[in-house]
Amino acid sequence: MDTLTDYREHLKEMNIISSALALLSWDQETHMPSRGIMARSQVTGRFAKNLFELSIAPELGETLKVLEKDDSLTTEEQASVRDMAKNYHRQKAIPPALIEEHATVQSQSQAAWAEAREKDDFSLFQPLLTKMVDYARRFADYYGYEDHPYDALLEEFEPGMTVKKLAAIIAPLREQLVPFMRRLAADGTPPSTTPIEGTFDVDRQRELALKALQLIGYDFDAGALDDVAHPFTTAIAFDDVRVTNRYLGNQVTSGLFGALHEGGHALYNQGMPENLYQLRLDGGSSNGIHESQSRMIENQLGRSLPFWKHFQPVLAGIFPQFQDVTPEALYRAVNVVSPSFVRVEADEVTYNLHIMLRAELEAGLIAGEIQVADLPERWNDAMDRYLGVTPPNDTLGVLQDVHWSVGYFGYFPSYMLGNLFASQMAVTIRQDIPDLDERIAAGDARVLIDWLKTHVHQLGGVYQPDDLMMRITGETLDSSHFVRYVEAKYSQIYGLS
Amino acid sequence: MDTLTDYREHLKEMNIISSALALLSWDQETHMPSRGIMARSQVTGRFAKNLFELSIAPELGETLKVLEKDDSLTTEEQASVRDMAKNYHRQKAIPPALIEEHATVQSQSQAAWAEAREKDDFSLFQPLLTKMVDYARRFADYYGYEDHPYDALLEEFEPGMTVKKLAAIIAPLREQLVPFMRRLAADGTPPSTTPIEGTFDVDRQRELALKALQLIGYDFDAGALDDVAHPFTTAIAFDDVRVTNRYLGNQVTSGLFGALHEGGHALYNQGMPENLYQLRLDGGSSNGIHESQSRMIENQLGRSLPFWKHFQPVLAGIFPQFQDVTPEALYRAVNVVSPSFVRVEADEVTYNLHIMLRAELEAGLIAGEIQVADLPERWNDAMDRYLGVTPPNDTLGVLQDVHWSVGYFGYFPSYMLGNLFASQMAVTIRQDIPDLDERIAAGDARVLIDWLKTHVHQLGGVYQPDDLMMRITGETLDSSHFVRYVEAKYSQIYGLS
Repeated sequence: MDTLTDYREHLKEMNIISSALALLSWDQETHMPSRGIMARSQVTGRFAKNLFELSIAPELGETLKVLEKDDSLTTEEQASVRDMAKNYHRQKAIPPALIEEHATVQSQSQAAWAEAREKDDFSLFQPLLTKMVDYARRFADYYGYEDHPYDALLEEFEPGMTVKKLAAIIAPLREQLVPFMRRLAADGTPPSTTPIEGTFDVDRQRELALKALQLIGYDFDAGALDDVAHPFTTAIAFDDVRVTNRYLGNQVTSGLFGALHEGGHALYNQGMPENLYQLRLDGGSSNGIHESQSRMIENQLGRSLPFWKHFQPVLAGIFPQFQDVTPEALYRAVNVVSPSFVRVEADEVTYNLHIMLRAELEAGLIAGEIQVADLPERWNDAMDRYLGVTPPNDTLGVLQDVHWSVGYFGYFPSYMLGNLFASQMAVTIRQDIPDLDERIAAGDARVLIDWLKTHVHQLGGVYQPDDLMMRITGETLDSSHFVRYVEAKYSQIYGLS
Repeated sequence: MDTLTDYREHLKEMNIISSALALLSWDQETHMPSRGIMARSQVTGRFAKNLFELSIAPELGETLKVLEKDDSLTTEEQASVRDMAKNYHRQKAIPPALIEEHATVQSQSQAAWAEAREKDDFSLFQPLLTKMVDYARRFADYYGYEDHPYDALLEEFEPGMTVKKLAAIIAPLREQLVPFMRRLAADGTPPSTTPIEGTFDVDRQRELALKALQLIGYDFDAGALDDVAHPFTTAIAFDDVRVTNRYLGNQVTSGLFGALHEGGHALYNQGMPENLYQLRLDGGSSNGIHESQSRMIENQLGRSLPFWKHFQPVLAGIFPQFQDVTPEALYRAVNVVSPSFVRVEADEVTYNLHIMLRAELEAGLIAGEIQVADLPERWNDAMDRYLGVTPPNDTLGVLQDVHWSVGYFGYFPSYMLGNLFASQMAVTIRQDIPDLDERIAAGDARVLIDWLKTHVHQLGGVYQPDDLMMRITGETLDSSHFVRYVEAKYSQIYGLS
C-alpha cells in the first residue's frame, strides 16, 4: 500500500474510535442512567487512551513526514496532514506521565469547582485551580511559542491567534462597545419584555424547537434532538449530527434560541462532505468559525425582524397567547440589552465584554502576572470596568464557568471571535443576496443556509480561519463590522438619534 | 501476574468492547437517525471483529486450560471458565472464512426475508433460507453432537437441551394443551374484551408503562425506558440496564404487557452483582431462564387478578375511562384465549403450540429431513394440527419471524421453556409466600421480586438451567406445572365445570 492509503487507513481507525467516544459522551449527557457512570468511565477511559495512542503512533509520525513533502496531495489531503501533524507534535510534546497526572487532577478540580459553586466559596476551588493553571503554563512551555505563553494555548482552539492579534481586536471593540452600552442605558428606551413573559409547556417548547430546526433545514434523517442540562451539538459520524437542547418553563426564548444556536453548529457539520470526515477535517476551521455558524443562526437570523415576521404565526400556532403579539413587539422583546453578571445570559452588545474580561485574566494567569488567589478581586474589578456591575458573590462571578476547572485556557476568545466572524460574513451575505430580509420574512431561511453551505460548511476544516475569512469576505477579521451591526440595530430598537 | 488475574483482565477488555457494542446497538434501534446506518455499521463491524478475536485469542485459550484444572476458584469463577471455554471452543471450531461468508449471506438473507414478507412471496426468501439452513447444518457438524445435529444448535441458547429432552417435554404438553384449547372454544364462555377497547394517547401509555415498571421495582437510576419498533432489553453495563417499549394507539394492553415483559428481563440483570458482570455471567442461566423472568412478570403477575385489584385504580388514574371498570372485568379481558396465526400475539394457552411447531420444523430442517421448499406447506399443515387454523398467506405464516433469516436455529424453544420454568417457579413461590395474592393485591409486588432476586437474579449465569431449577424447585423441568396453571386459570375464566 502507498503512504496515502496507509494514512487514510490510520484515520479510519481513529474515526471509528472517535465515533464510539462521541456516542458514549452524547449518551452520558442524554440517556445514561445516573449510576451507569462508574462502568461508563472505564469504557470511555479505555477508548480515549486508544485514540491518544493512535494520534501519536510512530507509524503515523512516519507517514506524516512523507506526506508533508508530497505535492500530489489534494487541498483537502494537505489540510488533513497539516492538522494531524500539528496535533501529533503537540501531543508528543507533553510527557505521558504529565498527561495522566493532569487527567487525575482535572476530575478533582471539576469536583472542587462544583462544590465551591454550591457553597459559594472560592477558597475550596483555589488550590486545584492553582494546579490547573500551573499545568496549563507547563503545557504552553512544552508546546512552544514565540511571544506569549498564552499563544500556545490559543492555538489549540483558534489556529494562528495570538495575544498580540487578540489585543488588536479587543482594544477598538471595547472602546466602542463600552460607551455604546452606556449610551443605551442612559439615553435609550428599553423595549418591553412583557410580550414574551409567561409560563410555557415544555413539550410544546420542544415542538417549537423542532419547527425552528425545520425552518433552517436541519436534516432529521441525519440527526436527532434530545434534552440535556447543558446543550451541545455533536457529530457522532458523517450523517449523524445530533443537537441537544433544554427548556425553561418560564422562558420560551431560552429553548428557541438554544435550538437555533445548536442548529447553527449542526448545519456546519451536516454541510460537510464525507471525504472531510474521512480526513478528520470535520471539526471545522476553528472553534471561532464554528461559533460564527451558531451565532449566525441564533442572532443574525433568530434575533432579526424578518425572522419574526415569518415566525410569529409559527409561535402563535403552538402558543396561542402570541396570536395578537406583533412581530415587531417580539423582535424588540428578544433584543433587550442589559449588563448582567452571567456570560451565558448576556445579550449581543454585552456578551463580548464578558469574553474580553476572561481573555485578559487568562493571559495574565498563564504569563504568571496574575495569581489565582487574586482572581475574585480581579474579576469583580474587571466586571466593573467592562460592564459597570459587581457580582454579589463568586458563584455569579469568577466561579460561573466550567472551563477553567477542566483546564480549557484559551477557549473563551473563540466565543467572541464567533460573533465577529458572523457579523463580517453577514455583510458579504447581504451583498450577495440583496433581498435577504424579504426572503427570510417570507419563510425562506434556506437562501441563507445555502449561502453558508457553499461558502463555509462544505469546506469544513480545509482552510484556517484567516484564509477562510479572506476567501469569503475578501479581508481578515475586522471587528468594525460587528460594531456597526450592533450600533445600527440597537440604536433603532432603543430609539437613539 | 497470576493466571486468574490475566483471565480477569482479558474479560475486562472483552466487557469494554461488549459494552460499546451494546450501546451502539441500543442507539441504532432507539435514537440513531436513519442515514447514520452507513457510518454506524463500520463502527459496529470493527468492534464485533475485535470482540470475536478476543473470544478466541490464543492467550485466552492457554489461560482457560490452566483455570479448568484450578480447584481454588470460586463457584462463580468456575462457572465463568466453563462458559468462556465452551464459547472459545465453539467459536474456534468454525473456519474463519465460513464465519465471514455466513455474515455476508446473513444480511442478504435478512433483506430477502423483509422483501418476501412485504410481497408475501416465500419464493423470494427460499434460496437464501436454503443457504442459511445449510450453514446451520455445517455449524452443527463443526460444533459436534451425540444424537442429533439440532442438539448442537440448542446448546447455544439452552445449555444441556437436546432433541430427546425437548420431545419428552413437548409430547405430554401438546397432548394436554390441544384438547384443552379445543374445550375452551367448544364449551367455554369467552370473556368480553369490551372493557379494554378504545383509543389511548401514546404519551399517557408511556406514563402507564413507567408506573408498571415502578411497581415491579425497576431501578431507573440504573436504567432507562425508550421507544422502539421492536422492544428489547439490553444490559449495556453493570448499573445500566435499559428497557425499550412500543405503544399502539388502539391497544392499551400491548404497551403495558410489553413494559412488564421487558421489565422482567431487566430485573434479572439489575439483580446481578457486579462480580458476575466482570466474569461475563450477566447473560443469565439460559435464554429460557431469562424468558422465565419476563414471563413471570408479564403473565404470572401482570395477567393475574391480584395484579388488577391493585392496578385498576392506577390505570384509571391515567385513563379515566377505566374508572368504573372492575378489576375482575380487566382481568378477564386480558385473558382471552384464541388460536391465532401470529406467535407474538398469542395468549398463554396457545403460545407454546406456536413454539412446538417451529421446534419440529427446525429439527427436521437441520436433520435434512425437511426441505426448505416444503416449508410453507409443512407450516400450514402443522398450524392446522396444533392450532386448528390455517394462515391465509405466508406473511402471516412461515414468513412471520425474523429468526431463521438471521440463522437463529434453536432459539425458539427457549420461549416455550421460559413459560414452563416460570410456572414451575410460581408453585415454589406460592409455597414460600402463602399470602402472595393478598400482598400483590395490596400493591406489594416487591415481595415477588425479592424472591426472584434471591433465588434467580443474583445468581446470574452461575448455574445451568437444570441445576438452577433443582436448586429453586427441588426438581428439573416438569411441564405439568404449566398445564395445571393454565387449566385452573382458564377453566375458571371460561366457566368450564
